[in-house]
Amino acid sequence: MIKENIKKDDLMEKIVSLAKRRGFIFSGSEIYGGLRGTWDYGPLGSELKFNIKQEWWKAIVKNRDDIVGLSASIIMNPKVWEASGHTGAKGLSDFLIECKTCHQRFRLGQEEIIHDHEEEHKKKKEKVAWTEPKKFNLLVETKLGVIEGQKSTVYLRGEITQGVHVNFKNILDSSRLKIPFGVGQIGKAFRNEITPGNFTYRSIEFEQMELQYYVKPDEKESMKHYDFWKNERMVWYQSLGIKKSNLRFREHAKNELAHYARAAWDIEYSSPFGWKECEGIHHRGDWDLSRHQKFSGQDLSYFDQEANKRYLPWVIETSGGVDRAALFFLLDAYEEEDDRIVLKLDPRLAPYKVAVFPLLGNKPELTKKAREIYDDLKKRFMTAWDDRGNIGKRYYSQDEIGTPWCVTVDFDSLKDKKVTVRDRDTMKQKRIVIKGLIDYFKENLEK
Amino acid sequence: MIKENIKKDDLMEKIVSLAKRRGFIFSGSEIYGGLRGTWDYGPLGSELKFNIKQEWWKAIVKNRDDIVGLSASIIMNPKVWEASGHTGAKGLSDFLIECKTCHQRFRLGQEEIIHDHEEEHKKKKEKVAWTEPKKFNLLVETKLGVIEGQKSTVYLRGEITQGVHVNFKNILDSSRLKIPFGVGQIGKAFRNEITPGNFTYRSIEFEQMELQYYVKPDEKESMKHYDFWKNERMVWYQSLGIKKSNLRFREHAKNELAHYARAAWDIEYSSPFGWKECEGIHHRGDWDLSRHQKFSGQDLSYFDQEANKRYLPWVIETSGGVDRAALFFLLDAYEEEDDRIVLKLDPRLAPYKVAVFPLLGNKPELTKKAREIYDDLKKRFMTAWDDRGNIGKRYYSQDEIGTPWCVTVDFDSLKDKKVTVRDRDTMKQKRIVIKGLIDYFKENLEK
Repeated sequence: MIKENIKKDDLMEKIVSLAKRRGFIFSGSEIYGGLRGTWDYGPLGSELKFNIKQEWWKAIVKNRDDIVGLSASIIMNPKVWEASGHTGAKGLSDFLIECKTCHQRFRLGQEEIIHDHEEEHKKKKEKVAWTEPKKFNLLVETKLGVIEGQKSTVYLRGEITQGVHVNFKNILDSSRLKIPFGVGQIGKAFRNEITPGNFTYRSIEFEQMELQYYVKPDEKESMKHYDFWKNERMVWYQSLGIKKSNLRFREHAKNELAHYARAAWDIEYSSPFGWKECEGIHHRGDWDLSRHQKFSGQDLSYFDQEANKRYLPWVIETSGGVDRAALFFLLDAYEEEDDRIVLKLDPRLAPYKVAVFPLLGNKPELTKKAREIYDDLKKRFMTAWDDRGNIGKRYYSQDEIGTPWCVTVDFDSLKDKKVTVRDRDTMKQKRIVIKGLIDYFKENLEK
Repeated sequence: MIKENIKKDDLMEKIVSLAKRRGFIFSGSEIYGGLRGTWDYGPLGSELKFNIKQEWWKAIVKNRDDIVGLSASIIMNPKVWEASGHTGAKGLSDFLIECKTCHQRFRLGQEEIIHDHEEEHKKKKEKVAWTEPKKFNLLVETKLGVIEGQKSTVYLRGEITQGVHVNFKNILDSSRLKIPFGVGQIGKAFRNEITPGNFTYRSIEFEQMELQYYVKPDEKESMKHYDFWKNERMVWYQSLGIKKSNLRFREHAKNELAHYARAAWDIEYSSPFGWKECEGIHHRGDWDLSRHQKFSGQDLSYFDQEANKRYLPWVIETSGGVDRAALFFLLDAYEEEDDRIVLKLDPRLAPYKVAVFPLLGNKPELTKKAREIYDDLKKRFMTAWDDRGNIGKRYYSQDEIGTPWCVTVDFDSLKDKKVTVRDRDTMKQKRIVIKGLIDYFKENLEK
């Protein structure tokens, strides 16, 4: 029986504990007391994150004609951040105040904006508590140069977005892409967060997966693309197993919108700490290209042969967090049943796809056969091996890390060339011909 | 006919130019005049780098029982760098001098060490020219904290190595690994290079792929593992197509050795700018674990059940550069023949595996059929499409970016359900049944 009543606070604790115990996520620099807002992904976590990125890349870059990839550097010329408005007089070093409950920050004077906790506060008849206004710049300052006293200040990118836009011309010149087209990128970004928290949700170092999709500067047509991508991204999370009821769209309020944004919606996940953004879909207009054109003095316009005119394209952006996705996939997959904990991760995301067991660990003939199967499967799929204790314990251990299938080699296997394949979710067992195993798992992974 | 006589200097220029023209590698922040020592990987370069990392991960982590993955954060607690000796009184902020020709740096007083250019200088009867001694710290300083005046100094990691060692205990506790075992990691690191140069070879931001392999603290046994990995890594580069004659081992001279190193060899590549390190294989003894044990006050020892004793394992490290590998793979693959330029990249590394063409771009029936094939192949392999100009030009274009196979759909294809598959290296053409294409490419990719 599934226990539906895990309390939300408990769930978070359970995930943090499981993540550490089984090697998904550790505190960064833990033996030195940690470093606030940094996280290290262990053996299972690094596979999970890798799988998320691979599925994203497949959906956005590999399987599409109109999108290419890019991988820009983390440290960029500081002028990039002037142009994007992250630094400079009108930059992000404004005076900000922060809600002490939900840690959202607002420019001074905009604090009456509706935010996540307002309703809660109303219920409890409390007032929203704000921090004192302080001067914040979210970009992480860095010193380049080797000689003390002669170093110059650069920034770690606060978003991966600008790496694409500054390369717009290079990408056009080196490819034969025509509007509409997109550029996908995955990479790390850094922010000087005031209050990192909620496990990996808000970190100073995080990984983004973003699409910048260039379209004609036309209201109607650009909104068609906007709607397409907004839907597409929601479908992606669902297709990888996040429950529909735990996802929603939320439109940015007028006073929340970046000044250049023509439309902005978030995809939010119902987490133990409230509805939280996992991805933003933004209509950025020609903000980025026009600013970079102005600040660099380079012509960044596109010549549209069909329309026989030159223009700055508009940009539809989908911006997701890899770490947030990993956290939400873990939270969503976690279930407790009568006698087991199970991570019902989509098989494509599961760190291990298969585990192979000899029924008894002390019978060399079983171990030998199981080992053959293991070696064969391992070439195709991330495959685990376990020969300790009883089968029940091994199932328990694999369920807890989300391994979709367990293969047990027993004495019958030596005669009938079949093994028992046990399904993580249904717990049903099937006898399957050893020769057919690879195809069986392949088909199930491609479903 | 193959032109064997591309001058080494010319080769470098040709690669830099090809890399930009076809979208492998662009200067970082180029429209702002660049930022010295930073590079952005374009559509083809990001695929190449991704493929290199994937092949490494497969060989080191996925296909082995005794190695797991890790993905630690770039920003770590500053104590990590005190422990590792990168900062602090005896840290890497020594006075260093640099050879003006080859830009190798040496601690003051060690400048008579043999280095790459000495022989050249001797031939030319020149003296080696040195820079003035200067205080250098290679770690990139960064400011964390959101309030001006209250920021603290941390460092971007100068090597990814320490992320593994500080997690040694976490990895042990969350897995069932037994000595000997290893931890593989891929990630970015940063160094305040005095003289970034030779294209992407020496950059301030770069990506490493490293294995830390923990073994018994036993001279003979550890050297057995050392020799195994030294050979294994050389084989890896060769198996991915680097010519044997362009690779060599070089043992570190006694006075070049890190003080804790029990053995150190480099795998070097014969580049246009000399024999250069692409990977180092280092016997680090218990340096890392003993230092982190001392500085963190945590017990990092391992209990060896078989030997019934507790010890600090020794470490064999293989440390390769992803960017260097990408550069060397490009250099090694470049060939000029009478009427074409061809990148003879191993198919597993090639950005596109297949290109599909309709024989004539203006015949809808050909385009339709070709498109069907393209859509089908694209689900499995990175596949390009081209319907412009004549077939010769399309081959030329694909050869230059290393696409191993081109598929042409002609009028016969509509009748006999076969297509022409042209091989990049032999330029030979075969008729292959359309239904058999996926298997044909799969088999050739798995060779």
